[in-house]
Amino acid sequence: MIAEILCVGTELLMGQVLNTNAQFLSRRLSALGVSQYHQTVVGDNAQRLEDAYRLALSRADVVITSGGLGPTVDDITKRVAAKVAGKELVLNPQAEAHVRGRFQRMGRPMTENNLSQAMFTADSTLLDNPHGTAPGAIVPMGEGKVVIHLPGPPNELQPMWINHAEPWLQERSGNVLVSRYIRIFGMGESNVDELLADLEKQSNPSLSPYCSTGEVMLRATAGAATKAEAEALLMPLVEEVQKRLGDVIYAIEEDDTGSLARCAVEALKRRGWTIATADSLTGGMMASSMVEIPGASAVVKGGFVTYQTVSKTMLVDVPAELIEKYDVVSAEVAYAMAEGARKRLGTDIAISATGLAGPDGGTPEKPVGTVFVGISTAGKTEVLPLRLNGDRKRIRTLTMKHAMNAVRKAAEAVI
Amino acid sequence: MIAEILCVGTELLMGQVLNTNAQFLSRRLSALGVSQYHQTVVGDNAQRLEDAYRLALSRADVVITSGGLGPTVDDITKRVAAKVAGKELVLNPQAEAHVRGRFQRMGRPMTENNLSQAMFTADSTLLDNPHGTAPGAIVPMGEGKVVIHLPGPPNELQPMWINHAEPWLQERSGNVLVSRYIRIFGMGESNVDELLADLEKQSNPSLSPYCSTGEVMLRATAGAATKAEAEALLMPLVEEVQKRLGDVIYAIEEDDTGSLARCAVEALKRRGWTIATADSLTGGMMASSMVEIPGASAVVKGGFVTYQTVSKTMLVDVPAELIEKYDVVSAEVAYAMAEGARKRLGTDIAISATGLAGPDGGTPEKPVGTVFVGISTAGKTEVLPLRLNGDRKRIRTLTMKHAMNAVRKAAEAVI
Repeated sequence: MIAEILCVGTELLMGQVLNTNAQFLSRRLSALGVSQYHQTVVGDNAQRLEDAYRLALSRADVVITSGGLGPTVDDITKRVAAKVAGKELVLNPQAEAHVRGRFQRMGRPMTENNLSQAMFTADSTLLDNPHGTAPGAIVPMGEGKVVIHLPGPPNELQPMWINHAEPWLQERSGNVLVSRYIRIFGMGESNVDELLADLEKQSNPSLSPYCSTGEVMLRATAGAATKAEAEALLMPLVEEVQKRLGDVIYAIEEDDTGSLARCAVEALKRRGWTIATADSLTGGMMASSMVEIPGASAVVKGGFVTYQTVSKTMLVDVPAELIEKYDVVSAEVAYAMAEGARKRLGTDIAISATGLAGPDGGTPEKPVGTVFVGISTAGKTEVLPLRLNGDRKRIRTLTMKHAMNAVRKAAEAVI
Repeated sequence: MIAEILCVGTELLMGQVLNTNAQFLSRRLSALGVSQYHQTVVGDNAQRLEDAYRLALSRADVVITSGGLGPTVDDITKRVAAKVAGKELVLNPQAEAHVRGRFQRMGRPMTENNLSQAMFTADSTLLDNPHGTAPGAIVPMGEGKVVIHLPGPPNELQPMWINHAEPWLQERSGNVLVSRYIRIFGMGESNVDELLADLEKQSNPSLSPYCSTGEVMLRATAGAATKAEAEALLMPLVEEVQKRLGDVIYAIEEDDTGSLARCAVEALKRRGWTIATADSLTGGMMASSMVEIPGASAVVKGGFVTYQTVSKTMLVDVPAELIEKYDVVSAEVAYAMAEGARKRLGTDIAISATGLAGPDGGTPEKPVGTVFVGISTAGKTEVLPLRLNGDRKRIRTLTMKHAMNAVRKAAEAVI
């Protein structure tokens, strides 16, 4: 089964609305094992919408529209689909009751144009909209193809999709898809690609790389008639990737919501450790990235933002002479910051970072991007020297990620 | 001039990446007065991409691609465009120097596949990419039409578009556009909309609202033959908006990169004040949002992440009895945190936040979203009680924004 998403609305073409509906539907469709090859956005223009329907129906079995179900003259999504199907819109009594009921409950008079939201082709299957006025519909388009109309607002579209459209589709697809998300830190995209090029060429199971700041995520996916069969196809691929990439893999998960900070927090929890932070160029980002994870309060005791040089002495006891001797951006200062933070808060581990995020302040010996991350436990304190590339935001984000990776590794290390 | 956006990447079809590039480009194009009637997403498939190019070029003068410029076998955007244009890709020496230079600066060996990022048709105009490895390009496609290739990562695409592609387009269009970005905090979109509905209906100058977490941004734009004429059209609109909205406007700027944190840092600089922070639920985000601004080191002395209750006593001297008596989420504790942070670091002002970010921990009296922000100067300490809505991330972000707005107001207050 092939689906195609067709979002209707001039506000999307103007950039006034971010198209989160396309992402939501794409994720749900790929989890269902429904293929998708195109997504289209068109404005509220009848001729262009008609062309878009005809093109989409020539390529896909299911065309999913979002938007344009409202009561205004710009809301043409249903009317144009009916024209393409060669049918008429008629007032649907069930939908009319829904629309009138909404206005009654809101205590507002209903203008007649609102009844356009209750007009459907006679053969449409209605989709209930408990969160809005306009019902959705599944509309037969001939040759076994359908158009599924969904409302534009995400808080109406999402429950309608999950509760009504998806069960209908699932019944028809008969293919179960399973995935693993393999997360990599410390190896660039091109290196990963070179090691896995042959695996990325296969189609079931398939392997696709995705990049974000300093990270690569691989998505491994397989489809089969049952979940167990799909897993059996999938797991040898996952194991092969593990064998080839080794310990740059920091997580293998069933969804794609993981992060280095989450893995760090979870590793700390498993170890029963508390942590303190001493942020300098990161300015609190190391602590904040952990606090973002629900339940972080079990492990994050507190931290220090030692941004100006003097605050490194005041807050985490870095001797002024040490800073004078080695410079504030140095392995020695990162070492002392981590130790000082750990001792001040009495935690099991502490992490520190000092460096040059730019855009100014670099020198030939210490260019922008020079960063030192310190990791201190009662047993030992270590420093990770880094040479990072990018703008201020990227250097700070990469520093945080290196720090989270170091925390994760320290907490996972065999005692 | 008609433009069409063509985003390339299976990750978009799978829903792994939210298509913020389409929104960014749409906004910029509509500000330039360039029309757009379709947006398309296709995966990393050569035949489908070729069809998409041909269709887009049949409808538009400028086809803008995002993604697929990297070194992997999946990166086919340039190759397929060259095929459609009937041309070959050749190694561009300038691009090669850029790619090799990136790897040199990162101190990483460059694998040969990376040179694909330096391959362009001989008649391409290169677009510099200071934030990534792959340069972009403007590629002539015949009949006066062009394809503009942009990289997928937004932090590379956006500056490339603003600094290189847009000036090129603007020169071709002969219409000078000027804009003002009016930034609003503390008034919802529907209220803003109600106050400005009549102004949002005009077209030159035009006024469009954009929303982000807790904020509304209005873009006022006018176009004319010269900059002076465009400004003369624009300014009466900007003044009218100021008159109607008053002090919920926190900035009126010529670009859209402003933020509450930047305004706070700039207000502190103007006042000659230093600041300390005491983050709890924000976990360092208040400090980090200021440190993100280049030059923040002149005003951000340092701060404390007082996440676990005990750290509020250890780090910023909140009496344990006070916490016991009023609860850790209380105006009294926010007050003491701000005072304690200011005194410990000896700054002119300090900001604190304590609250419930969820998902757990709420009670009927203190639901998730209950937050107190403290602002302390030598003269007085005040507390802002907040009742925020949303998930953990939104509550933490809104808290940070309220705090930054409070800092800005305090620093701007007449003495």
